[in-house]
Amino acid sequence: MHVTIAYHESFREMVLNLEQWNRWFEAHPDLIFKGTCAADVRLAQETNRTAIFFGFQNPSPIEDDIGLVEICHQLGIRFMQLTYNNQSLLATGCYEDDDTGLTRMGKQVVTEMNRVGMVVDMSHSADRSTLEAIEHSTRPIAITHANPHWWHAALRNKKDEVLQALTRAGGMLGFSVYPHHLKGGSACTLDGFCAMVEEAARRYGASHLGIGTDLCQDQPDSVVEWMRVGRWSKVMDYGEGSASNAGFPPMPTWFQDNRDFGNIRAGLSQTSLSEADVDGIMGGNWLRFYEESFAPL
Amino acid sequence: MHVTIAYHESFREMVLNLEQWNRWFEAHPDLIFKGTCAADVRLAQETNRTAIFFGFQNPSPIEDDIGLVEICHQLGIRFMQLTYNNQSLLATGCYEDDDTGLTRMGKQVVTEMNRVGMVVDMSHSADRSTLEAIEHSTRPIAITHANPHWWHAALRNKKDEVLQALTRAGGMLGFSVYPHHLKGGSACTLDGFCAMVEEAARRYGASHLGIGTDLCQDQPDSVVEWMRVGRWSKVMDYGEGSASNAGFPPMPTWFQDNRDFGNIRAGLSQTSLSEADVDGIMGGNWLRFYEESFAPL
Repeated sequence: MHVTIAYHESFREMVLNLEQWNRWFEAHPDLIFKGTCAADVRLAQETNRTAIFFGFQNPSPIEDDIGLVEICHQLGIRFMQLTYNNQSLLATGCYEDDDTGLTRMGKQVVTEMNRVGMVVDMSHSADRSTLEAIEHSTRPIAITHANPHWWHAALRNKKDEVLQALTRAGGMLGFSVYPHHLKGGSACTLDGFCAMVEEAARRYGASHLGIGTDLCQDQPDSVVEWMRVGRWSKVMDYGEGSASNAGFPPMPTWFQDNRDFGNIRAGLSQTSLSEADVDGIMGGNWLRFYEESFAPL
Repeated sequence: MHVTIAYHESFREMVLNLEQWNRWFEAHPDLIFKGTCAADVRLAQETNRTAIFFGFQNPSPIEDDIGLVEICHQLGIRFMQLTYNNQSLLATGCYEDDDTGLTRMGKQVVTEMNRVGMVVDMSHSADRSTLEAIEHSTRPIAITHANPHWWHAALRNKKDEVLQALTRAGGMLGFSVYPHHLKGGSACTLDGFCAMVEEAARRYGASHLGIGTDLCQDQPDSVVEWMRVGRWSKVMDYGEGSASNAGFPPMPTWFQDNRDFGNIRAGLSQTSLSEADVDGIMGGNWLRFYEESFAPL
């Protein structure tokens, strides 16, 4: 499991979130442990536990200090988004009007992330910034949780040109099941979702695809509010929601929670995808990507 | 080499010091690397490099947050003093008038340090606090850099009762060559120093003894001022020095810098100590202690 450790937290606040996970790891070693390398995925399977991998959805924890990239890697962070919807010190988010691409600091930080083994994640970034990150990075990057824009034209979903560039460079796309990213929203059908995956495999190659649910299971609405406005706005911003639909939207019937991965596998098996392709999409591709991505250069 | 990462730094400031070391590790991998376990000592010897182990001389970096003990261990910290001369949140320093022993938080933090594998270091602590730390800790502790009070009655040197308790519980004493801790100061002779070590071996057992130079080589006087007053006083405090002798005192002729360890070995070989005892004091005992101390329980 890849969990979000920061949305808007400063470095010190992010460390408080790590401390909470350390307490959970101490209390429940029979269920969970911190994952830092691909071998931990296999260890989790062998010991019937869950390995927890850490990621940031925002570079706020590194503040204006490039030295914090390596410090965060030493603390176990393996993914960092360069933006979370808004402009950051590094790049432009997908909700801004103008996208100026990677900033001066953004280029330096991508190079440093490449060096230490932290994956550049552009899930919430704007198109030009994403294309420039793909270009600037010497290692494959990821869009861990989004869907193709040609399937559902949400601001958060990614244009064909971006997904072409991402996957040509060896990068990974994780398909989201967050209703705002789904065609038809909460009413999206499993067949519709799997047909989209099938078409994405045709366009980009199945080996570059995985699942990245964006699952907010058992999170209270206070979390969605922190995600959306942090401290950056005095007025509420509803992000992909609206004033009349402010909380987490209901999940589709075929993916209510983490126990429903089998439904996606079953759905994909009904498509023209090979069994090997389905295995890759359901986890094997991420495992290979982890093997290639988390060690220092 | 065991280096000091913090004297009075907050958590965030201490991380800046780690970042500086990360830059040195990146720039000079042929000379140094971060040491986190005893095996790194052997690796350093095999590859003709120096392994750098991190310690705090003050618990200031964990602030009032016990969760930072494990975070700091994850960042590579392997020693932490419970006090630096003054009262801390955890215990009483050796310069205070009254010693109230381990605080409520101090007891909790020692237990947490035992759990994660961070060594309790009482080099700058007062006697009752040190005795209570030895008693409360379930793992052997250390006085990494100090000498016996019966040899030279400095505030920083340790009473026989304390050294008896320390070593009976499996703990380690590292002998300092900082002139203020030496009988005769900068004029202390090598013979005098080695006779003290010989007597300490008779009293406490040679296997509990090592070297802990307190070496301030190539450090400017601004460092000694930060050590002494940090931000805790508006007036200068000269610690073991004085207004007329404010900077670092001159080192003894037989230990000018890190290249002079051989002089100590040669001096010890002239005493009644066995060759095995001398080997242990010159490094083997610390290596064994590292092996027993740095892993989580």
